[in-house]
Amino acid sequence: MRLFDFALAPNPRRVRMFLAEKSVEIPLVQINTREREQFEESFHAKNPQNAVPVLELDDGTCIAESVAICRYIEELHPEPPLMGMDAKSKAIVEMWNRRVELVGYVAASEAVRNALPMFEDRGLSGVPRGVPQIPALVERGKQTLGRFFGMLDRQLAGNPFVAGEAFTIADITAFVTIEFAKRVDVAIPGSGAENVVRWHGEIASRPSAAA
Amino acid sequence: MRLFDFALAPNPRRVRMFLAEKSVEIPLVQINTREREQFEESFHAKNPQNAVPVLELDDGTCIAESVAICRYIEELHPEPPLMGMDAKSKAIVEMWNRRVELVGYVAASEAVRNALPMFEDRGLSGVPRGVPQIPALVERGKQTLGRFFGMLDRQLAGNPFVAGEAFTIADITAFVTIEFAKRVDVAIPGSGAENVVRWHGEIASRPSAAA
Repeated sequence: MRLFDFALAPNPRRVRMFLAEKSVEIPLVQINTREREQFEESFHAKNPQNAVPVLELDDGTCIAESVAICRYIEELHPEPPLMGMDAKSKAIVEMWNRRVELVGYVAASEAVRNALPMFEDRGLSGVPRGVPQIPALVERGKQTLGRFFGMLDRQLAGNPFVAGEAFTIADITAFVTIEFAKRVDVAIPGSGAENVVRWHGEIASRPSAAA
Repeated sequence: MRLFDFALAPNPRRVRMFLAEKSVEIPLVQINTREREQFEESFHAKNPQNAVPVLELDDGTCIAESVAICRYIEELHPEPPLMGMDAKSKAIVEMWNRRVELVGYVAASEAVRNALPMFEDRGLSGVPRGVPQIPALVERGKQTLGRFFGMLDRQLAGNPFVAGEAFTIADITAFVTIEFAKRVDVAIPGSGAENVVRWHGEIASRPSAAA
């Protein structure tokens, strides 16, 4: 088994944090997306969507999509559980992980992809060229990140972690989203997000945050 | 248990199809999003993201997000399995469901939300107002839907269903995406998508397609 990774990209970081929390080690292969290596034929054959991370199993099967990789790892290494333990907690973790993705991660991605010069004519992940940046998405993404911090703060006011009592994949997604948003100079608000600040400090101090 | 639904919206349809495939019946409560009922306080309390579907459990817990609801149902009613059966098949279903969502469903949503007059100043789901439509997203969404049909056709050339040998949640997401895209006059391409046409006909003839 090996994981196609890029150390500077946010989605592979989600998987690396997940693996670190599980104490699972998998050999990493770097695909430098800043050098467009994800579009080379040898990698495209592993993931036609031209994106890292990809987990290649020993039988050659390639699993793309960060959460799909995490689910595979969760099945193989159930402890500690990071995706819920029974029907209700699995559903609640899935709900919160998706809320974080759909409100926060999507907004951060839109702001980054449509703002940075390195993504000129590459406004969508995985498409080699021909997708003009849409400047209006930068501002809209930043506004949505404001709503994301509000959503997160209300949830963390009554819960130690994003999906409730236990650390889960939803905390990883939220933490990586916040780190990702720094690329467009968006930070946790100075007021009205005290619970996010407390939680962020706790997550940042876990060994997995360095993964 | 009851499901907050809206008969004309695509996400609740995903859950209704999933329930129909499982032969599970849950009482439905209509939340008319065209009349902005999702923003009323009584519903907002169930899902602060102001969106259907929401599954309310007998203990009052509210599960939002279509796939989170499906996961809960899958855990309670494992047969027939619609989200994989072992580590590898669960990961492959998750990968394909997410590919369909991220390439197809997101593009259809962007095109619809930024094109239809009913969404004026409501360019993002769940936000009551103050989000101007971005016309460039209509064209970009339609172009991405072209890539979606290409991705789907290549996969269905070698597989009876989207995630491989068995009907799964990924087929439901893809089918609802195609039905949703009709709202902006995007249809399955007349050539180069013969496998999608074959598969779409088969899915449309399942009883669950009428759910």
